[in-house]
This record gives sequence, C-alpha cells and structure tokens, in this order.
Amino acid sequence: MLPADPGVRELARSIYRSVAGAPIYSPHGHVDAAIIAENRPFGNPAELLITPDHYVTRLIHAHGVGLDQLGVRNPAADPREIWRIFCAHWQVFAGTVVRYWFESELSEVFGINVQPSAETADDIYDQLAQKLAQPDFRPRELFDRFNIAVLATTDDPAADLSAHRLLADDPDFSGAVVPTFRADRYMSPDVTGWPGFLDELASASGIDTGSYRGLVDALRNRRAYFQEHGATATDSGMADAYAVPISDAEAERIHRAGLAGTVTPAESAAYRRNLLYQLAAMAAEDGLVMQLHADVLRNYDQASFDKYGPDTGHDLPGPATFTAGLRQVLNDFGRSETFRLVLFTTDETAFSQQIAPLAGFYPSVYVGAPWWFIDTPAAIGRFRASATDSAGFGKTSGFIDDTRAYCSIPARHDMSRRLDAGFLAGLVATHQLGEDEAHEIAGDLAGRVPVNTFRLEKYL
Amino acid sequence: MLPADPGVRELARSIYRSVAGAPIYSPHGHVDAAIIAENRPFGNPAELLITPDHYVTRLIHAHGVGLDQLGVRNPAADPREIWRIFCAHWQVFAGTVVRYWFESELSEVFGINVQPSAETADDIYDQLAQKLAQPDFRPRELFDRFNIAVLATTDDPAADLSAHRLLADDPDFSGAVVPTFRADRYMSPDVTGWPGFLDELASASGIDTGSYRGLVDALRNRRAYFQEHGATATDSGMADAYAVPISDAEAERIHRAGLAGTVTPAESAAYRRNLLYQLAAMAAEDGLVMQLHADVLRNYDQASFDKYGPDTGHDLPGPATFTAGLRQVLNDFGRSETFRLVLFTTDETAFSQQIAPLAGFYPSVYVGAPWWFIDTPAAIGRFRASATDSAGFGKTSGFIDDTRAYCSIPARHDMSRRLDAGFLAGLVATHQLGEDEAHEIAGDLAGRVPVNTFRLEKYL
Amino acid sequence: MLPADPGVRELARSIYRSVAGAPIYSPHGHVDAAIIAENRPFGNPAELLITPDHYVTRLIHAHGVGLDQLGVRNPAADPREIWRIFCAHWQVFAGTVVRYWFESELSEVFGINVQPSAETADDIYDQLAQKLAQPDFRPRELFDRFNIAVLATTDDPAADLSAHRLLADDPDFSGAVVPTFRADRYMSPDVTGWPGFLDELASASGIDTGSYRGLVDALRNRRAYFQEHGATATDSGMADAYAVPISDAEAERIHRAGLAGTVTPAESAAYRRNLLYQLAAMAAEDGLVMQLHADVLRNYDQASFDKYGPDTGHDLPGPATFTAGLRQVLNDFGRSETFRLVLFTTDETAFSQQIAPLAGFYPSVYVGAPWWFIDTPAAIGRFRASATDSAGFGKTSGFIDDTRAYCSIPARHDMSRRLDAGFLAGLVATHQLGEDEAHEIAGDLAGRVPVNTFRLEKYL
Repeated sequence: MLPADPGVRELARSIYRSVAGAPIYSPHGHVDAAIIAENRPFGNPAELLITPDHYVTRLIHAHGVGLDQLGVRNPAADPREIWRIFCAHWQVFAGTVVRYWFESELSEVFGINVQPSAETADDIYDQLAQKLAQPDFRPRELFDRFNIAVLATTDDPAADLSAHRLLADDPDFSGAVVPTFRADRYMSPDVTGWPGFLDELASASGIDTGSYRGLVDALRNRRAYFQEHGATATDSGMADAYAVPISDAEAERIHRAGLAGTVTPAESAAYRRNLLYQLAAMAAEDGLVMQLHADVLRNYDQASFDKYGPDTGHDLPGPATFTAGLRQVLNDFGRSETFRLVLFTTDETAFSQQIAPLAGFYPSVYVGAPWWFIDTPAAIGRFRASATDSAGFGKTSGFIDDTRAYCSIPARHDMSRRLDAGFLAGLVATHQLGEDEAHEIAGDLAGRVPVNTFRLEKYL
Repeated sequence: MLPADPGVRELARSIYRSVAGAPIYSPHGHVDAAIIAENRPFGNPAELLITPDHYVTRLIHAHGVGLDQLGVRNPAADPREIWRIFCAHWQVFAGTVVRYWFESELSEVFGINVQPSAETADDIYDQLAQKLAQPDFRPRELFDRFNIAVLATTDDPAADLSAHRLLADDPDFSGAVVPTFRADRYMSPDVTGWPGFLDELASASGIDTGSYRGLVDALRNRRAYFQEHGATATDSGMADAYAVPISDAEAERIHRAGLAGTVTPAESAAYRRNLLYQLAAMAAEDGLVMQLHADVLRNYDQASFDKYGPDTGHDLPGPATFTAGLRQVLNDFGRSETFRLVLFTTDETAFSQQIAPLAGFYPSVYVGAPWWFIDTPAAIGRFRASATDSAGFGKTSGFIDDTRAYCSIPARHDMSRRLDAGFLAGLVATHQLGEDEAHEIAGDLAGRVPVNTFRLEKYL
Repeated sequence: MLPADPGVRELARSIYRSVAGAPIYSPHGHVDAAIIAENRPFGNPAELLITPDHYVTRLIHAHGVGLDQLGVRNPAADPREIWRIFCAHWQVFAGTVVRYWFESELSEVFGINVQPSAETADDIYDQLAQKLAQPDFRPRELFDRFNIAVLATTDDPAADLSAHRLLADDPDFSGAVVPTFRADRYMSPDVTGWPGFLDELASASGIDTGSYRGLVDALRNRRAYFQEHGATATDSGMADAYAVPISDAEAERIHRAGLAGTVTPAESAAYRRNLLYQLAAMAAEDGLVMQLHADVLRNYDQASFDKYGPDTGHDLPGPATFTAGLRQVLNDFGRSETFRLVLFTTDETAFSQQIAPLAGFYPSVYVGAPWWFIDTPAAIGRFRASATDSAGFGKTSGFIDDTRAYCSIPARHDMSRRLDAGFLAGLVATHQLGEDEAHEIAGDLAGRVPVNTFRLEKYL
C-alpha cells in the first residue's frame, strides 16, 4: 500500500513505521457499545464478518447472489454456507478495498494467511470459529490488542446509554467508548413511524414532543444527557446539506401535519432543513462537534428495502450541496469558537470545489475524511491531493473508519496511515515538505488532528 | 504507454506480453459490415484515415481549418491536399491520444515510421496509397491480420442486415461480424423526418407504425430479426438517461402529435424517456444486452450542423444522469437475470459517483469503458482507479473501441491492454494483488470479461 | 517540484533547465501599474506579503485569527505583529501551494532561507525590511530581475491608464505593462452604487450612459482607448457563463429600472447575461481577447463582507456553466477569426467535460490555466492530464499567475515550468512524445503559447 517508486517507498516506510503503533482514535463508527460492555464472544464467522457488512454483501449481490443467501434478514441461513459463498466469490473483490481490509483482518487479527476460495472455505471457517471461541478474541481483549484509545459509537437520542455508562464505571476497562448523538429519524415528518419515534423521545427526555418546540427542547435535553455520558459530537445523515430556518409557526404547522399523517414531501423537507439549522444552533451553544454526512440517496431499490430493510447496499451517492446548502449556518455560526462542523461527502469533486474552500476560510469547518465509495486507497490519494493544497492538513478531520465491522478497525486505520505516509513522502520527494515535518504531520494525523477535530483532548 | 517506474514497468511488460496477441473482441463500434462483406480495397488515405474521423478533423478545425478543406461533405476536395493539411498540423496532436493511435496505425498496420509533417506528407501519402492497393490491405485480410474474433457493428432497426448474412453464410470467412440494434432515430417525435423513419421501419417489419403501440411492436419484431442475425446487444445514444414510463394513452397522443408535426419539446422528451423504458422492458424479455450512451448534447453548432451534418465534431459532454434517470428501470429489471445494462458516460465523475455504485449492487448493471473525450490513456487510468475499487474488474465491460476507423482497431485495443497491464502491475507493486492474479485478470479483461458482458460466449 | 521517479526526474530537469531562464509573459494579473510607474520602495513586509494576499489571510483566518489582526481594513495593526502571527502559523501552510510560493519568494527574491516560526519571525522581518529599503528591491529593478517581458494589469474601463502611458513613454523602461479591460461593475444593475459607476464611465468616455445603448457605446469607446494604450485583452468575472442576448427594448427597460433602484435580481441577471453577449460581439469586432472567469460565488460571508469588503477570502467555487451558457456566443462568433475566448474555471471537472471539448472544436476557444483553488501543483497536474489529451497543448492558454503579490510572480511561473517539464517528461517516458518535441513544447508553453493566445506577438 506504500508508493511503488523505491526512493519514495523507503521514506514512506520510515514515516509509516513511526506511526504504525500509535493508539487508534476512532471518532466515528457503528459498533454497538453493548458488544464491548457485555464482552460476550462473537458468534460464527459469517455473522461477524459477512452478513452485517454491506460492503461485502453488495458486491456478491452484484454478481447474482441474493442477499438472503448471505444471511440478510434470514436467520435460517447456514453460516458455513454463507461463508462458502463468500469464499467462492473471492475473486470479485480483486482490486477493491474490501479485499485489502479482509486480507489484513484475516492475517493480522486471526493469523490466517490462506487465500479464500471454494476449496479453502471450510478450512478458514473452522480456523476462525476456533479462534472466536478463545478468550483472546472477545471484544474487550481485542479492544486492548487493537490499541484503541477512543471508540465513538452512533446512538439514538432516546438511547439510555447504559452500555457506555457501564464501561465508564468499570475500573477494569481502561479504554473510552463514547456515544454520538444522531437524531436522523426525528427530522422528517413523512417517515413511516415518526409519531412513534417522537413518543420514544418523549419518554427518554420527559418532555412532550407533540409540538415542534417540544421536539427541539427534547433534543436539546438529550444532547446534554449525551454530553454527561462522554459524547463530544453529533452526527446527521441527510439527503442534502440544506439547513434553512423557517418560522416557528410554520414548523409547528408542519409538525402537526406530520402527526396527522397529512404532511407533503415538500413540507417534510422544509421541516428537516429547518431542524438541521436548529441542530447547528444548538451545536454553537453546547459545543458538540457537528458531523454532517450529506447527499446520499437512501434505499434506492424499493423491493430490496421492503425485503431486507435499510443499509443493505443500495444507498447511492448524490451530488454535494454544501456551499449552497450551508450558507445560512455558516454566516450565523461559521466564525463561532464553539461551533464546529465536519463535512463528509461521497462526491469527491466536493473536496476541491466546496469542502476545502469552506474549511480554508471558516474556523468552524473541517474537511471530513473520504466516506463510502471513496474510502479506498486510490480515492483517499485523490482526496489528499485535492484537499490539502488549499486547506492544509490541520483543517482535515483525521481518519474515520465509519464501520460496523469491529475486527476491520485496525486494518482500516493501518491503511490510512500507510497512505498518509505515502502522500507525505511524495511531498518530501518533490521538495514541498521537509522530512522532519513529514514525520511530525504523520503523527498529528494519527493523533492530534482527530483529537482536536472531535474535541477528544481528555483522551490524548 | 507502460508505467515509467522501472520496477512496475517490468512487471507491466510481462503482463502485457501475455495478452498482447490475444484475439480482439470489439463489442461496440461503427464499422460498416458491407466493407468487410464486399472486401473492396479501401480508397485513398484521406478517405480512409482523415475525413470520416471526427477525432482528427475537429482538432484541426480548432486550429482554424474549415471542415470542407478536410473533405467533410466536400467530395471535390483533393485527397492529397487533405492529407497535406493533416500532416502540416501533426503538432496539434502532440499529447493527444489521436497522435498515439495514428502513430501505432502507421507503424503497425502500414509499416510506416516516418513522422508526419509538411515535408513528409507526400511521401507518406504515396506509401499508403501503394499499400492500400495491395491485396493484403483489403478489409478481410486486415480482419484476419488484426486477429479480430468478433466485430459488432451499429445498425438501424430497418436495416436488412444483408452484409451480416452474407458474411455468416460465407464459408471462407471465419470471423464474426454481428449487428447491434440502435433505434435512436425513432425515439424523439420532434426530430426532422420522424414520420418517414417510421415508414421505413413499417416496411422492414411489416407492422404499421402509425401508432405508438405499432412502433413498439415493430421494434420488438426487429429485435428478434437482429437476434436471428447474430445480434447480442442493442445501443441507445440519448440526451439523458431518464427512462420513465408513461401511460399508453399519453404515448399514443404524443405519437399522433409527432406525426402531425405539432409535438412540443417536452412531449417529445417524455415520449423518448418512455420508449427508453420500453426498450429496457424488451431487453429484460429477449436478453439483448442494453448499452446506454447517455448525456451528450448533439450538434451544438447549428451552422456546422447545417453545412456538414451530424457527427462532425461538435457533440459535447453533459453531466451524467444515471442514478436519477434509471431508478424505475433498475427497480423493475435491475435484479433480473435476463436484463443486462452497460452504462457509458463522457462525465468521468460518474464512475465513482453513479456507475460503479450501481454496478456494485445491481446484478444487471455493468460499467462501460470510458467513452469519447475520456477514451485517452490518462482518463482510462482515472477510470480504472475510480471504478475498480468499489465495483471490481468483473463488473466492468472490457474495452470498447467505438470507432469508425477500421485500421485503428488494433492500436486502440493494444493501448487498452498496455494500460490495464500497467494498472494491474501497480496493484501488485503496492501489494493489493498477487502477480498470478494480475496475469489472470489481464487475460480476462481481454477475453472473458467482454465476452461475458456482451453475451458472446459462443465466440470465445 | 519535479517528478519523484529518478528516470523521469532527470529528463524533467533537463527540460526545465531549457526554459528556466526564459522571459516571463504574465498576461493576466492584479498588480497595480502605478507601483511600477512610480517605482517607490515597497512598504513593510506585512503590507507587501501578508495583508493584501487572501490566499495567505484566509487560511490563517480558518485557524481562528480575525482578518483585522492581519491588517485587513485595519491600518492601525502593527505590521511586525501581523508578521509574527503569520510566522507562528507557518505550519498551517504545510502541504499547500502558498507555502511553496512563499519559500521560493523568500529564498529566490530576498535570499532568506530561514523557516518562518514564532522564534524566527522578528529576524526575518528585520531582514526583509532592510532589503525592501534597498534600491535593488524597488518595483522596476525587480521587474528587470524577474525578467518580465509583459505584465498585464486589470483595469476599470473608466481608468485613465496614466501609469501605463507613463511607462510606455519612459525611455528608461524597456518592459511592457499593458492594461486589461474589466467591465464587471457595470454589468449588474442591482449592484450597490451602479448609477455612480455609470457616471464615472460617462465622464471617462464623454458618452451619456443614462441608457443601455449609451452604456454599450461607452464601453466600446473605452475598449478602443484601452487598445490605444496597449491592451490586447479584456476580462470578465461572472457569477455564471451565460451570455444570452435580449432585445434592446428590454435592456433599456431594465437599465431604467436599475437607475431607479427598482430592478429585480432576475432582471439584473438577464441584463448581465445580455451585456456579456454584447462584450463578446464587441470582441469579435475589435479583436481584444476575451477572458472569462465564471461561476464563482462572491462574498459568501455577509458579516465578513460588511466588515472587510470584497476579495477577503470567502469567494467560493461554483459548478461550471460554459457549455450551456455560451452556446449562442459560440454559434455566432466561435468560428470567427477575430474572436478569441479564454475560459477560466475553478471547477476542475470542466476541463475534460466542457472546456477542452469546446477548445478542441472551436477555433476561437482556448483552455485557460487552472485558476484559484486549483492553481496548485497537484491540480495543475490533473489539468494537464485531463485537458491535453483531447485539446492538445496549442489550445491551452499558457500559465497565468493571476496575482496581486508582485514578488511571487517568478515563483509562480517557475512552478508552472517545473510542472510542465514533469508532465512532458512523463509523456516521453511512456513513449507518447519524442524528447525533442518535449523540449520544443516546453519552450512554447513558456513563450509562444501565451503570446499567441493573448495576441502579444509584438512583445515576443
């Protein structure tokens, strides 16, 4: 994964080595805190490595295998059979980042260096199953072995965060597992089940969410609760980046229409965009770092959504809308010391055209690491080349693994460190940076940069 | 054309050598089957290499030479004079892919290694004219020498395909020349001459095309006819990728308006988008692979169009619309085993943002090779780097030459093989792929991949 | 800044050396002609190098420093203190092009090789201040030392161009400083102060600008005045590239509304787009090369604009609109020998999708060098790779420094020459170009290409 040119490679390797063993800061991801808290052994290899990982299942699906055959919403599927299907399709991952992560994971975490194939499937399955039964392969033991300093989870505002509290109170657990506040399901009144979500939030907060003002108050209340439980950030995953305030009266009117089930798509979008603005306003007050993952078209395939639910591989990138969408937010809070906004995109043209230009002016804006579809070696290289030259390293977020796949965390961070080392070595080789500086920046990118961006100073 | 780094280059050369001599599968192009069937000697060098190739004429035009001076719609132009103009402008092609193809063609096909210039123009012209008069340089002899396994042509649904039949029935011709069904001129009722086109189709199919339903039936009928004559694919070149069904009644109404000459642009677009959907529906029935070349603005310069007609160098790329435009088609047929859709774009941002994400989920979707304006070495490199990492190699189409320039076919495929070898060698050098695998994938990309994508199995 | 691969680097260095000392053609920039004409010593280091350069100030601002602390609209700020802030923030520029230019400038122009930091700030300041007081560091002496052949300034149509005249008449000044006609402030009737701008233009031209027709006549009159004073080009910086004629009656109506202060944004945009078309029509008559810098959203942050004015770092890139916006202009003038149009963008997707395709057909269209946000080494490499392969070198504009920072001119052109040498060496290494040709093209890119594009033949 280091550059091919021998001279640059040598330097890149030296830079990489200096950060290879540094603790992992994972400020954004989707591992369930309960897994760590309860520390039960992982299940079978398919349940751990295949079925929940839509990076893996979608590409096998693209070669004609039904998601049910891979265990998605299908508890009756035989895990060994799932594993065999995966191994028989190993070649479809050639050239993809999934293959790289998987190989690293098998080798580094499980000590398995056999290449998956129809022939080797059972053998690898058996080896994995055997390892997973060992105490060393339980979540907490792996947490230590992975050298994770901070792991941020993603949590609903109604969550009680009991697993986080349990871990924080556990004298035997020295790591940090912090929650992240993600209010997506409350944002759009036309989403199926919205009134019920409001009820759950009312229960959690003790605040009546029957009105728009009540919902805003309840969200503010839960943000405080999350902060008390270690949260330093929120996340929003939105169809677009527009954050546009509307009047309270108009918001109340749409709120009522949502409860009555008579809301139009246009009203719902206006409500969501207003609420995104309100979340920014709250962030400017309480200092929770606002992450924005925008411009993804969710659940593109209706039949697959009906059968398998969300997050099953058919969410698709859309064009970035940050500059146009965030103008009001940035005019109002972009120069505030409290407010911090990290922008994530799947539209890589946005790095040079929107995100780096915004982060290169507004103190509050940070360039989020490449996300989904562009979280690959080549795309990360393009990101560095197109964001650094105008925004520098210090306004980038540091690496985010954004993963459900717990065992892939070290492989992902390691890949990022190698790529950063290669990029820095290239700057040194072309006399754009001194060698000492390159070493220092590599260390920052693995530590100080994400810590600063996500206000994790107390874990440094 | 191989990578500059000596280590990577060595490996790339070894990979390239293993596929350099493989048969050529050309599943999409614009050579006239009659040229092969009749096997008459080619005309003069200008008529063969300059006048019909808008890659060549447009750039000379950009330096101030009228298209008529290059023979476009000007049979009175002296071919030697055209050739002299071309040679005198040789430097304007420096750094372009046209220059690379031309050099390869002159050298590999004609054995001419003199660099074109005002001084060498007559000498090269005479050498070419002499070769073209020799039996070895007739179309069929070149077909064998080029080692073409399958050549797909592009044909109007009303075509009788007699040249294809003649070739298929000829015991002395061992290659395969297969037709491709391209119904573009029937799609938009506001195009000049549309009623006459319908009449031609009615004659060919024996089905009355005076109604929308009749047109659909006639197209279905001719698809079957094409399949009987060896076709495995269709092609559509559209202003955008929207494929949106409308009611039959509405389609009939617009059809009548088209015949009456009263159709509005909006109605015509709705009609076209509906018909594109219907073509997809037919493809899901009959299994003809659907190629979609979308989002090109045709005939941008009205005066040039009036004087020289279409395909004269002023068609321009537009932004890709696949994800938004194809949702209904993919929801309805994207998981069908029969349906297959190959997406071609001139908007390279679409590879990582639209096409690879779609092909990485839908079994029916394949990533078309870079097309027009991005069919160059650098752009092909960017394509591999941005499509492979999420969709892998197996969901890409294989190389398509898309050319009218018969003699440039070997140069174009050879370039592709070199570039793929270089890309694969880069993956090996950065430890993302094994060397054995790289060799195997290179072979697949030249053979099994296009054969599979275009359902050409019987020619493998 | 040359390529890292040793073989390519060697060749690149050889190419670079052959052009390193060539005279500088700077056909587009923002240095004030009066600075050269008056030849007064520069002020203090902060006033020269920090405060007016929004590339520098915006990134420090992005790290939390107020623009007033950097002297923007704050004459009371202590220059030494500004300089200290800059030096203390030196690391924020790591990996950016600003750092490269600054280092080159300090080293090559001022002979200072100390790295800026909080510790070295005062020392560097003192060294700089001492140099700036020396006669060798006055503007004209630097002009000679920089080996500038032509420097184009940017000027308002109402300007009397006295500094340009003074320089032209000065027998002791052998360089050329030519004006560029930039009519932006007259284009949009809804801009604050528009009636007053019209009055200034009326005074300068002696033509009543109370009507639309009067404005057009006044602009035509001043274009002639600029040509008499050596101008060969105009420039327009527009919110989009649309140039769409409207009727004279409609234009007169909007003109009156503009004077009355009752114009709507939509009317103002229509007026501007019409006037851009009229400027193109004038260019097709008088032969002034038309530069178009389009699709930038100006003054994004209202509070910063109110406090600090325009050009203070919060102008942002927008999506390119050339193909759609310029159709009428190109249909009418694109094949004219007199008309010439150079297109500049901050949207790099436009190179392969819009600008190179247009320049590869229309004789009048040239590909402008990458502008703002994409005027960095990596982005310039991407530009060459995506524009050259379809449009060649001869339809590119040559390098444009576009700078207010006089002392950075040599560093910017030197960077461009190094990057071009590297790109050309890469083409040679991959056998796409001969070595002799590469040397020749490098020379052309530094000289003949900008001279030809901007009609500067008399200065060659």
